[in-house]
Amino acid sequence: VSLLTLTRDLRRRKAREKHTRCVVEGVRAVEELLAAPVRVVGALVGPELLTTARGVALFDELTRRGVTVESVDDREFASAADTDAPQGVLVVVETPQPVLSALPEVGTLVVLDGLQDPGNVGTILRTAAAFGAAGVVALPGTVDLWNAKVIRSAVGAHFRHPALHATWDELAAYLASQSLPLWAATMDGAAVSSVARSGRVAIAIGNEGAGVSPGTLAAASQRVTIPIGDGAESLNAAVAAGILLYLLRS
Amino acid sequence: VSLLTLTRDLRRRKAREKHTRCVVEGVRAVEELLAAPVRVVGALVGPELLTTARGVALFDELTRRGVTVESVDDREFASAADTDAPQGVLVVVETPQPVLSALPEVGTLVVLDGLQDPGNVGTILRTAAAFGAAGVVALPGTVDLWNAKVIRSAVGAHFRHPALHATWDELAAYLASQSLPLWAATMDGAAVSSVARSGRVAIAIGNEGAGVSPGTLAAASQRVTIPIGDGAESLNAAVAAGILLYLLRS
Repeated sequence: VSLLTLTRDLRRRKAREKHTRCVVEGVRAVEELLAAPVRVVGALVGPELLTTARGVALFDELTRRGVTVESVDDREFASAADTDAPQGVLVVVETPQPVLSALPEVGTLVVLDGLQDPGNVGTILRTAAAFGAAGVVALPGTVDLWNAKVIRSAVGAHFRHPALHATWDELAAYLASQSLPLWAATMDGAAVSSVARSGRVAIAIGNEGAGVSPGTLAAASQRVTIPIGDGAESLNAAVAAGILLYLLRS
Repeated sequence: VSLLTLTRDLRRRKAREKHTRCVVEGVRAVEELLAAPVRVVGALVGPELLTTARGVALFDELTRRGVTVESVDDREFASAADTDAPQGVLVVVETPQPVLSALPEVGTLVVLDGLQDPGNVGTILRTAAAFGAAGVVALPGTVDLWNAKVIRSAVGAHFRHPALHATWDELAAYLASQSLPLWAATMDGAAVSSVARSGRVAIAIGNEGAGVSPGTLAAASQRVTIPIGDGAESLNAAVAAGILLYLLRS
């Protein structure tokens, strides 16, 4: 099967799961990828990549590493790309498969509870990696972590930092095994700076509109809030997560 | 001139400046807008708006307020919209025109120094409003604050909180008149939590790739950094701004 056919197929979550492959798009994201320990399956290149010096350097680097490069025309490239302005380069890689039981036992655990915006989820992964979080666990109802838009927004964090999907039962068993308290980010909790903690915590970030789900809220031992001005709109979910991860950094 | 023609024209920055009009797109952003003190010129509505109960309620609210509503077909609506998934509703409003000399003399002043991503800039406006910043000033080289994508990401903050473009000379004169120290967010500054301040500051956030410009750096009295892990990628610009605005809130 050609790389063009494969990448078109990998736009669907089911195909990504079946093949355990995902797609990294855009010059910067692919550059970051090549610095990470990941197996590259192949690269699909459109004419646009070779219109910039940086793109030519990336093409040369892919070739130098022995990556299989398939060149296609603009229309074919567009039919395979899943992000805005993919800049003529897509790389197919083996999807990392971290497991809960092997997560590092240091740093905050980030729980994504129904987030839908790929940019928000990617940005949270990037922030979690920057602040040395233990990992990012996505509960059912969250956008696929291996969606090309999520991967692009995370600028390589998927391949340097553990990120995985889990069911609520799997997460609950892990939290119990680690004696990790679960906190929920809400609009009506205690000011996060006023809450004492004796060690690591897991922090749940909820859906952009609906917030943390009722089940997660019921299981949380603490609700925490970032105080904002009277009458102010809420914070963007990725900004709120960023402030919490800064405050909860080890 | 029909609203359809006007909104198509308002996709260009020059047209927005000439008409002092801008466009708010999407159900939630328009809902937020209607809660703010802004003069609505008219609304362009596509068939998609009336496919949800929330959209119908918004249509009714626009009509109840006496807003001129122009209905168009899907193709015409798409030709006027400038954001992803505008959900069948665009509203044209008078662009607010706050001036530096009338900014509130309380809270942090946010300086955008060459940011290019509309989503980042809109998210920073939203965060600045949430934390009671004095205002947001965009220096030359920054994306137009009145771009529909920026407005959408800010979810109404443009109409509740001062945001304006200014030249470097205008900003420098204002900072001097207020005795406001200028800080720059960089990768090599002092840890922001370690820097003492005796009052309000202005904080410059730089371009997503290149950071704060040399001229702004030269004028800054303090470089501040959000410490991240060794070997970690940088933070997203809107997340970094969010953490700084949280720490510098009044």
